[in-house]
Amino acid sequence: MTSRAAVAAEIDAIFHPGSIAVVGASANPETPGYDYVRSLQEFGYEGRIYPVNPKGGEILGLPVYASLGDIPGVVDYVISCIPNAYILDLVRDCAAAGVKALQLFTGRFSETGRADDAALEDRLRRTARAAGVRLIGPNCMGLLYPEFGISFRTDMSRKSGPIGFLSQSGNLLFELTHFGESRGLRFSKAISYGNALDLNECDFLEYFAEDAETRVIGAYIEGVRDGRAFIQTLGRASSRKPTVVLKGGRTDAGGRTAVSHTAALAGSAAVWEAAVRQSGALSVATVEELVDALIGCAYMRAPAGVHSGDRLSRPRLAMVGAGGGRSVLTADLCEELGLRVPPLPQDVEAKVAEKAPDLAGWVTNPVDQSILAGSGLGGAQVLEWLDESPAIDMLVGNVGEPWAFGRPNGEAIVRRVTERFIEVAAKTNKPFAVVLGPSDYADEERWRVVSEARERLVEAGVAVFPSVERAVRTLARLARKWSSRQD
Amino acid sequence: MTSRAAVAAEIDAIFHPGSIAVVGASANPETPGYDYVRSLQEFGYEGRIYPVNPKGGEILGLPVYASLGDIPGVVDYVISCIPNAYILDLVRDCAAAGVKALQLFTGRFSETGRADDAALEDRLRRTARAAGVRLIGPNCMGLLYPEFGISFRTDMSRKSGPIGFLSQSGNLLFELTHFGESRGLRFSKAISYGNALDLNECDFLEYFAEDAETRVIGAYIEGVRDGRAFIQTLGRASSRKPTVVLKGGRTDAGGRTAVSHTAALAGSAAVWEAAVRQSGALSVATVEELVDALIGCAYMRAPAGVHSGDRLSRPRLAMVGAGGGRSVLTADLCEELGLRVPPLPQDVEAKVAEKAPDLAGWVTNPVDQSILAGSGLGGAQVLEWLDESPAIDMLVGNVGEPWAFGRPNGEAIVRRVTERFIEVAAKTNKPFAVVLGPSDYADEERWRVVSEARERLVEAGVAVFPSVERAVRTLARLARKWSSRQD
Repeated sequence: MTSRAAVAAEIDAIFHPGSIAVVGASANPETPGYDYVRSLQEFGYEGRIYPVNPKGGEILGLPVYASLGDIPGVVDYVISCIPNAYILDLVRDCAAAGVKALQLFTGRFSETGRADDAALEDRLRRTARAAGVRLIGPNCMGLLYPEFGISFRTDMSRKSGPIGFLSQSGNLLFELTHFGESRGLRFSKAISYGNALDLNECDFLEYFAEDAETRVIGAYIEGVRDGRAFIQTLGRASSRKPTVVLKGGRTDAGGRTAVSHTAALAGSAAVWEAAVRQSGALSVATVEELVDALIGCAYMRAPAGVHSGDRLSRPRLAMVGAGGGRSVLTADLCEELGLRVPPLPQDVEAKVAEKAPDLAGWVTNPVDQSILAGSGLGGAQVLEWLDESPAIDMLVGNVGEPWAFGRPNGEAIVRRVTERFIEVAAKTNKPFAVVLGPSDYADEERWRVVSEARERLVEAGVAVFPSVERAVRTLARLARKWSSRQD
Repeated sequence: MTSRAAVAAEIDAIFHPGSIAVVGASANPETPGYDYVRSLQEFGYEGRIYPVNPKGGEILGLPVYASLGDIPGVVDYVISCIPNAYILDLVRDCAAAGVKALQLFTGRFSETGRADDAALEDRLRRTARAAGVRLIGPNCMGLLYPEFGISFRTDMSRKSGPIGFLSQSGNLLFELTHFGESRGLRFSKAISYGNALDLNECDFLEYFAEDAETRVIGAYIEGVRDGRAFIQTLGRASSRKPTVVLKGGRTDAGGRTAVSHTAALAGSAAVWEAAVRQSGALSVATVEELVDALIGCAYMRAPAGVHSGDRLSRPRLAMVGAGGGRSVLTADLCEELGLRVPPLPQDVEAKVAEKAPDLAGWVTNPVDQSILAGSGLGGAQVLEWLDESPAIDMLVGNVGEPWAFGRPNGEAIVRRVTERFIEVAAKTNKPFAVVLGPSDYADEERWRVVSEARERLVEAGVAVFPSVERAVRTLARLARKWSSRQD
């Protein structure tokens, strides 16, 4: 076994522990020592859970052990919530108990910027290495693996999905779940790894590249130990699976903040950006872009031409739905992003002329729903024609609920358009993005209609975006990636 | 009275009609001829409503007149929903009945691109001018004036607000309402004016600049008749009130789409952009940016320094709330947008050191909520100190509900943080943006908690943004405007 394969096997074992001890477990619901135990229970973890606390007693129906050594069975994995002062003893206890891996929620190491904390971190590393205990963290939330019943918080999604994610920030994983869950952003496995003292970004990236449950890889990274090794690993990963990287600490202020967060050394933004692009991974700059890129990679097809080695430098986009200013602005934004928005292709024009002669030569692309209104020709029909046309490379379908809700049967329109878009998604070979706005309505019924429509789309595996802007920005971003691939 | 003042008086009369006739009114709820009558009724318009249709009968409880001439009383304003073939007759009927203004939902004029339609439009203009009838449109939705009971759709917001809006697209007004309503995007008056055959963008802009009910002006424009006159008018308007302009048809594809929408001639994007900036107005490129800029202008204070003539070229921003990667990424984005994110100012640092000595020298700006957790020092308290510090120019408060919802008392945390931010907003003299994510939750209870928190903020007049990204982009955009003002 190569060294890389050996580490991947270690991480795979870490993701599949037969038993977990939570050291610093607590009956106080305000503490992480409670959260970890409760999360494992609520996510249905089937191994043994051992709360550890010198006070003893019972937590959430489980007996509490005074120390690791008191646990009667084998412990595969330990989660630490104790203060940093006790951490070296814990590592030694782990070694004595045959524990292979220790995850440290415990923080206050080098990230505080204080010399004694940094020195302690250094001793932690040396002690763990000498003891043969692998570390995740310190200063991190640890593992999320819904399929196996592992979570660090009760409110992460229990649904599994195609995305493997490594993050130096636990908070970022909450945000991805909260802002992406309703759009289908779901994890195969994810890991919050904080200061990366032992197992690091390369190890996790390598693991996700091989992991059969992971189809798309995402990463939030503040700093790396070895830039060259990281870029090589990133290149290998992104040659296997679409890989999206969000870098924190790109500026002086961001880098300073990263030091206080995970003690990461940020490095030059320009060098980083160039290297990531060179590696074939997608680089994004904000959480919104990250969510959108992951949704795009997970749920949109790459254009057919790319698979046969064709180039796709300025793809031709068609959009149907909404209208008026929205059509105009979409055309503008696409062109500004390097996508072409050609007039209706001749084959589609001919079909329009046959079905609705009155509109021939007037309807253009983007197809303005308000021009179609009352013509007997529906937007979804035109979208199907555009899908069949060889002169169009990518499709956007806009549910256009602001217009629909003004009609007497608005809810029925939203549902019908949604189902028609699902039909198009099922048969198209082109990248297809559906736009459905946020369900921010103060009115509960509208919230419900939009939420249900989104859920239908997500369950059908359709990529949904909360605005036309975000849909076309994502298509443009992925188009650049597709056009640079040579497979 | 100057000619400008005379036109403004005409528009003011149009916004305050004592009676309205809907020509082409219909009992069929699927038609605009029904929508207009119903909207006036539902919005509580107190003048007389006269449905007109040769078929006669009754619509929504109102007697239908066969023609304008059959109406017993004075008609101040006419809305046309009839086919374009009858439009010249209608203008003549208006003149005969003493009607001063005619709004044409009726379309299919020059926007179809057909010579006969364009010729008809030209005759419409000449006929109306000869008859002394002012036109709004054709090919438009017309007036929205909630306070006076006028709307073109039943589902526009009935709440009045500070924003006067002129739009060549009616659909854009639906979108603004649907995507901005829950954030407080509410209109004093708005007007969808389509092809701008008679009354045009300059007339409406001039009107809103003087209108006492309008505090902020927004515009969606695809093309203007007279570029020089428009820029002069825009300059006058934006010297009176913050003015935000979204231009459609900036590219070839967008311009082509604009022609099929409102027959507008788009002109050069670069020249436009430069001229708009020169005029002192804010230029935006997407509907999201438009919503955010209007919210920012309506609900954020300009920094105090600006009013005394100071320059504010690279304002210093502080953020509190959320944490981890979010803090790092916010610092990065701000710096990339030209905002500074300095470390905690010394005066704030000293207060932190006094209240929570353990965190001194570790907490930085953006203030990471996860570092504060358990310290007894709350984020809102630090925000108040930052507000008091002379070394900070603008503030962001992030409710951070993804973190809060993981706590046992998450809803109470969201409510408490919201109320604390409202307190800060009430006393700060600095631009202050609150971040509260979209209420896209599939879970109804969470939707309700976030919706209610947002409503509290909006009712308190606080500027709310659905993401940190959008908040800081808006602050950066407004900062550029503030720094270039010389008042």
